[in-house]
Amino acid sequence: MNDSTTATARMFSSDNAAGASPEIVEAVVRAAAGQAPPYGSDDVTAGVRRRLGEIFERDVDVLIVSTGSAANALGLAALTPPWGSVLCHRDSHINNDECGAPEFYTAGAKLVALGGDDARIDPDELRAAVRHKAGDVHSVEPSVVSVTQATETGAVYTAEELRALGSTVKEAGLRLHMDGARFAGAVAALDATPADLTWRAGVDLLSFGATKNGTMTAEAIVVFDRSLTAELSFRAKRAGQLASKMRFHAAQLEAYLTDGLWLRNAAHANAMAARLQEGLKAVPGVDLLGSAEANILFCRLPQQVTQGLLADGYVFYHDRWEPGVVRFVASFATTAQDIDGLLEAVRRHTA
Amino acid sequence: MNDSTTATARMFSSDNAAGASPEIVEAVVRAAAGQAPPYGSDDVTAGVRRRLGEIFERDVDVLIVSTGSAANALGLAALTPPWGSVLCHRDSHINNDECGAPEFYTAGAKLVALGGDDARIDPDELRAAVRHKAGDVHSVEPSVVSVTQATETGAVYTAEELRALGSTVKEAGLRLHMDGARFAGAVAALDATPADLTWRAGVDLLSFGATKNGTMTAEAIVVFDRSLTAELSFRAKRAGQLASKMRFHAAQLEAYLTDGLWLRNAAHANAMAARLQEGLKAVPGVDLLGSAEANILFCRLPQQVTQGLLADGYVFYHDRWEPGVVRFVASFATTAQDIDGLLEAVRRHTA
Amino acid sequence: MNDSTTATARMFSSDNAAGASPEIVEAVVRAAAGQAPPYGSDDVTAGVRRRLGEIFERDVDVLIVSTGSAANALGLAALTPPWGSVLCHRDSHINNDECGAPEFYTAGAKLVALGGDDARIDPDELRAAVRHKAGDVHSVEPSVVSVTQATETGAVYTAEELRALGSTVKEAGLRLHMDGARFAGAVAALDATPADLTWRAGVDLLSFGATKNGTMTAEAIVVFDRSLTAELSFRAKRAGQLASKMRFHAAQLEAYLTDGLWLRNAAHANAMAARLQEGLKAVPGVDLLGSAEANILFCRLPQQVTQGLLADGYVFYHDRWEPGVVRFVASFATTAQDIDGLLEAVRRHTA
Amino acid sequence: MNDSTTATARMFSSDNAAGASPEIVEAVVRAAAGQAPPYGSDDVTAGVRRRLGEIFERDVDVLIVSTGSAANALGLAALTPPWGSVLCHRDSHINNDECGAPEFYTAGAKLVALGGDDARIDPDELRAAVRHKAGDVHSVEPSVVSVTQATETGAVYTAEELRALGSTVKEAGLRLHMDGARFAGAVAALDATPADLTWRAGVDLLSFGATKNGTMTAEAIVVFDRSLTAELSFRAKRAGQLASKMRFHAAQLEAYLTDGLWLRNAAHANAMAARLQEGLKAVPGVDLLGSAEANILFCRLPQQVTQGLLADGYVFYHDRWEPGVVRFVASFATTAQDIDGLLEAVRRHTA
Repeated sequence: MNDSTTATARMFSSDNAAGASPEIVEAVVRAAAGQAPPYGSDDVTAGVRRRLGEIFERDVDVLIVSTGSAANALGLAALTPPWGSVLCHRDSHINNDECGAPEFYTAGAKLVALGGDDARIDPDELRAAVRHKAGDVHSVEPSVVSVTQATETGAVYTAEELRALGSTVKEAGLRLHMDGARFAGAVAALDATPADLTWRAGVDLLSFGATKNGTMTAEAIVVFDRSLTAELSFRAKRAGQLASKMRFHAAQLEAYLTDGLWLRNAAHANAMAARLQEGLKAVPGVDLLGSAEANILFCRLPQQVTQGLLADGYVFYHDRWEPGVVRFVASFATTAQDIDGLLEAVRRHTA
Repeated sequence: MNDSTTATARMFSSDNAAGASPEIVEAVVRAAAGQAPPYGSDDVTAGVRRRLGEIFERDVDVLIVSTGSAANALGLAALTPPWGSVLCHRDSHINNDECGAPEFYTAGAKLVALGGDDARIDPDELRAAVRHKAGDVHSVEPSVVSVTQATETGAVYTAEELRALGSTVKEAGLRLHMDGARFAGAVAALDATPADLTWRAGVDLLSFGATKNGTMTAEAIVVFDRSLTAELSFRAKRAGQLASKMRFHAAQLEAYLTDGLWLRNAAHANAMAARLQEGLKAVPGVDLLGSAEANILFCRLPQQVTQGLLADGYVFYHDRWEPGVVRFVASFATTAQDIDGLLEAVRRHTA
Repeated sequence: MNDSTTATARMFSSDNAAGASPEIVEAVVRAAAGQAPPYGSDDVTAGVRRRLGEIFERDVDVLIVSTGSAANALGLAALTPPWGSVLCHRDSHINNDECGAPEFYTAGAKLVALGGDDARIDPDELRAAVRHKAGDVHSVEPSVVSVTQATETGAVYTAEELRALGSTVKEAGLRLHMDGARFAGAVAALDATPADLTWRAGVDLLSFGATKNGTMTAEAIVVFDRSLTAELSFRAKRAGQLASKMRFHAAQLEAYLTDGLWLRNAAHANAMAARLQEGLKAVPGVDLLGSAEANILFCRLPQQVTQGLLADGYVFYHDRWEPGVVRFVASFATTAQDIDGLLEAVRRHTA
Repeated sequence: MNDSTTATARMFSSDNAAGASPEIVEAVVRAAAGQAPPYGSDDVTAGVRRRLGEIFERDVDVLIVSTGSAANALGLAALTPPWGSVLCHRDSHINNDECGAPEFYTAGAKLVALGGDDARIDPDELRAAVRHKAGDVHSVEPSVVSVTQATETGAVYTAEELRALGSTVKEAGLRLHMDGARFAGAVAALDATPADLTWRAGVDLLSFGATKNGTMTAEAIVVFDRSLTAELSFRAKRAGQLASKMRFHAAQLEAYLTDGLWLRNAAHANAMAARLQEGLKAVPGVDLLGSAEANILFCRLPQQVTQGLLADGYVFYHDRWEPGVVRFVASFATTAQDIDGLLEAVRRHTA
C-alpha cells in the first residue's frame, strides 16, 4: 500500500481508509470546549450508554475503547479463563489479524479454529467443539464462542442462525461473544433488530464497531451480561484503555448513534458494494465470489485488470487469498462516482 | 467529583479536565477529509516522527498510543523481562495509579518502590537497588529504572540530576525509562533541551505526554534505543494500541508539536500554578507544601476553606495524602481569571 | 556455599540441606513396584487426601506439587484476579525469594508489602491495607492476604492472632492464604490443632510444606474452600505441576503423615534450635536476636567467630540481613551432636 | 481408567503406568543420606550435566524439572516471544495434552498446527509456515518449530529428515525445539547418535524425557544453545521448577544415564511393542495401523475383543481417535509374559 494519502477515493483496501462523518467531526469540536470530569464520568459518556440502551431495547453497560482489537481482546478476557479455549472461525479477525491480542489479554487462552462457508461457523462443527474434552484437565476447557457479524468476507448471520448457534453454546454452558466490527452493516443488511441479533440470541458481550463506519478512534464494548462489568472496568484500565479525556471518544459515538447515522452510513456502504457488484456482473472475465451482503466484495479478476487498476493508483488487496482473487471494500464515504470510476477502469483494462 | 461538566473553569483536580487546544481541534478537522492508509502508514504519522526527531536533535522512532498508561506499560515491557524488576519512586503513577498495567504488559515483572523527596528517586537508594541480588535466580532481576519528569508532585529533575541517575543505571547494566506525562512542563520549567533531559542522560525510552497539555487522546512513545522498535510494534498491535485510523491521533500530535505549541501550553500552565502560589502566599492560614516547579501545587488549607471551595463547586483532591492537604492542578486552558477567582474564594472562606 | 556435599552435618544454611526420613525413603521404594494409574488417580494419592482430612478434622481437597514456590504461586493464583493485590509481609518468601513466581502464576497481580515484628504482619497495617483504594479501578484491588506460618524468622502466629487477622481479612471480603513451608514446626511449637491454625481462623488455602521437614520433592496444597479445586486442577496441569507418576510424590507424603512423623520431625528440629539457643546464651559476645520458636535462630556473632566457623567448613548465611548477623537453621536430621559440635566451635573461636 | 493399582501388568494405557528401574530406586536411596547444597549446586546434579555432555558429544547446559509439560513449556518460553508462533504437529502433545502450558509459560504465544503422517510435520507445510506473514505486526511472528521424537504415534524422524527440517527452520531464522518425551525410544530405534538426532540437525533445546522410561519424577532440559541458559534459570525458578532438594531428581537421572540404562530400557520397551505387533499380525480381524517404530502400537480391534479385554481388567485407550481404534503402549517394565498374556486374551476374545 502506498504511503501517501490519495486525494480521489481510490482506496478500496478497507473501510478504515475513510475519514470521519461530518456530524462526528462537529461533535468532537463541541467536546473540545470547557472542562469535563475525566475517565468517563462525564455526561457525554453517560449519553452513549443511554443511546445504546435504547438501540438494544434494554439496560446495557458500555466500555469505550480506542480499537477493535482492544474491544475483542478485553471482552474475551472476561469470558474465558486462561486455561479456556475460544472457539472461532478459522478466518476470523481474532484468529489471524490481531497479533495474538486475545492470547495476551486472556493470559494465554487458546483459540480453536472452526470451519464454515463465508467465514460463518459451521453449526455441526460447533456442536462437536463445545464439548470437546470438557472437564479434562489435560486439555484447554471450551469456554467461549466468538462469531463475527458481518463476517470477514462480508456475509451475515441471520437472527435465526444466531439463535441456533446461541442455544448450542448455552446448552453446553459456554459464553457467546460477537465481534461486531461491522455490526452496523449487518443490521442494515438484515430485517432484524439489534436486540434480535445479539442478546436475544444469547450474545453475552458485543464489540460494537464504529471506526470502520464513520468515527475516528472510538469503539464500544456493549455488555449484556452486566455481571462482567466490574471485571471489565479493571481490565480496561489495566490495559491502558481507560482514556482520561474519554469525552473525546464518547462524543464520536454519541453523534454516531444520533438520528440513525450509524445505520445510514452502513446502508450507504452496503449500497455502494451492491452497486459495484451489479456493475461487475456485466464485465466479461470477472467472476464474483460469494455475494456482498454487507460492504465487502470478493471477485476474481484477470491479471491485466488487477495490474491496470494498481497502475491507476487503486489500492486493494489482491492475490492474498488465492491467485487472481481481489477484495474491494466500500465505506460510508464511498460515492457512486467512486464506484463508477472503478467500474469504468475495470472495463477499460478488460478491453 | 460531580458528574456534570462545569461551565466555568472550576476544576483544579487534574489537567485532564481541560479540553483541547484550538490548533489541535483544527488539525483533527483537517484529518477527517479524504482517505489515508491505515495503521500509521500515512503522511501525518510520518510527520510526527520527523518533528520529534527535530525536537530531540536525533533520529527517533515513535509509537503513537491512546493513553499514558499504555505508553508507560508498553515501554516498560520492552525494557524488562518478566522476571525483572522496575525500580521506581513509591509515589510514581506506574506504581499507584495504573491498576497494574506495567505488571500486565510485562507479564509479571515486579515494581520495586524507592523513596526520595518530591517524588524524585533518591540517588543513594537507587545505587543500592540497581545491584540488589543481581544474578540471583531466587530474586527478580533489577532491569529498568523509571523516572517521572515532571514528578507526581510537580517537581522536576535537573539535567545534571538525570545524568547522575543515568550513569548509576547504565554502570549497573540496567535500562532507563522516563514517564513524561508532564514532560513539556518540565522542559518549560528548566533551562535545558529535550535532548539533555532524555537520551543525553541515558534515557532509552520516553513516554511523551500530550493529553494533559492540549491534545485529546494521543500520546507518543519516543524510542531512543531504536533496537527496541520492532518489538514495540508487535507489542503495540497485540495490546490493541495500533489505531486503524492512526492519522486522527497523529494529527493531534502534529499540531501539538508545531510552532512550539507544546511548550507554550506548558509554560502557560506553569505560570498559572505560579500565580496561584504567589496569591496563596499572602493568605493567612495557608501553608504551601514544596514549590510548584511545574503545574501542580500542594498546600494545606483550613478545613472551612476546603469546605467552602467545594460548596462553591470547585473540584480538587483533598485529604487524600494527609488531612488538610489539597492539590491544585493548572492546565494550558486555565486562565488568569480562573486563578484569581479561586484566590478570591480562598480569601473569602478564610475571612 | 561450597559445591560439594558435606559428610558431617555442618550445614546450618537451611533445612533443605538435609536428606529424607527413612520412613519416607521406604515408602518411595515400595511405590516403585508394579503399575499404577497416572496423574494422581492412584490409591496412594487418595490416601494422602484422607490423612490430611483427618489431620484437619474436615474434608479437604489436596493438590500435590513438587516445590513450595509452586504451591504458593498456584494457590495465590486461585485467590486473586490479575488486577488484585496480595498483601504480605515485606520479609515473606513470596515477596523476596521466589523470583516473582506469584506474579507469573497470577498473570501480574501485585504484592503489597506490610511491616510487623518477626516477619509477622502487623494487625493495624493490615486493617488499613485491606480497604486501601478498594473498588478504585485506578489501583490494584486488595484481594488476598498471605501469612507465613512459621515465619521466615522462625516466629509463629498463635491461633488467637490468626483468628484476629482472619476476621480483618474476611470482614473486608478478601481471601486468606497461608504459606506453611514450616507449618509442622509451628504446630509443634504451639498448643493448637492444625484446624485451629488454619480454616477455623479463616484460611482458605494452605501451602502444606514437607520437603524442609523430611520429604524429598513433595509439597501439598490443602484446599479448605473446595470451590477453588476445579480451577486449581487446571492451573496445576497448565503449570507443569501434575506429575504423571504422582504416586512417587504421594508416597512421600503418605509416610510423612503416618504415625505423626511430620510432627515428630518438626518437634525434633525445634528442639535442636532450642538446644543451640540455650548453648549460645552462655557464650560471651553472642547476642541472640528474637527467640527461636521454631527451627530458625538469628544471632549476632563476633566477626572472628563467623570467620572461624566458615574456616571449619560450617555453612550458614551471614552478613545478609545486617553486618554480624547470622542465621542457623536446624532440621529433622540435625543431631544433638551436630549442635554440640557447633557450640564447641563457637566457644573455641570466641576464646 | 480404574482408580486402583493393578497387581499384574495389565496397563497398556501409557508408559507412565510403570514404576521405576531398580538402579534408579537405589540411587534415590543413596541420595537420602547426609547433607547436600540445595537448588542444584550439589555434586549429583553436576554429574548429570557431565554425563549428558558425554552422550551428546559436546558441552551442554541442563535444567532438571519435574514433568515433561514443564520441560516443554519452559523451553518454548525461551525460544519464542509472546507475540510469536510455535509451529507444531496438530497431534503433538504440546498442542493437545498440556492444557495450554506453552501458552502460559510463553505469556500467550500461539501454537500453529501443521499436518503430516504419523504425527511427523510435513516438510512442505513447514516450508510455507515458517515464512507465513513474517514481519507483519498484524499477525503472530513465526518463531519456533517443535518436533516430537519419537512422535505421539510411535513413529520416528530419521537424522536425515531432521536435518532437512532443521535447515528449513534455520534458513527462515526460526528456532528448533524437540519434545523428547520418548527420545530414548527414538535413539534405540534408529541407527543414529543422540548428537545426530539433535544439535547436529539444528535442535536448539531438547526436552529429554526420562519418567516414561524408568525414572520417577525427573526430566531434563538439554540446552544446546547455551545463550538461553541464564534466561531458563530465572524462568525455571519463577515457575516453581527449581527443586530445593534437587539431588533427589538428579540421582534418578544419574542412574538413568549410567551404563546405558536409558537405552536398555528403551530398547526393551520397543522390543515388547514389536513382540505385540508380531503376535497381533497373526490374529484374524486385527488391523495394525502404521508400524510401531518405538513403544506405541495402534491397531483396529473388533468391538467384542476390545470389550473382552476391558472386562479382563486391561487398561488402554480405545475409540478415542476413531471407533474401533485402540492404542497399546509398552514400557521398560513390560515383560514378554505381559505381552503374551495380552496376545492370548486377544485371541481368546477373537475366537
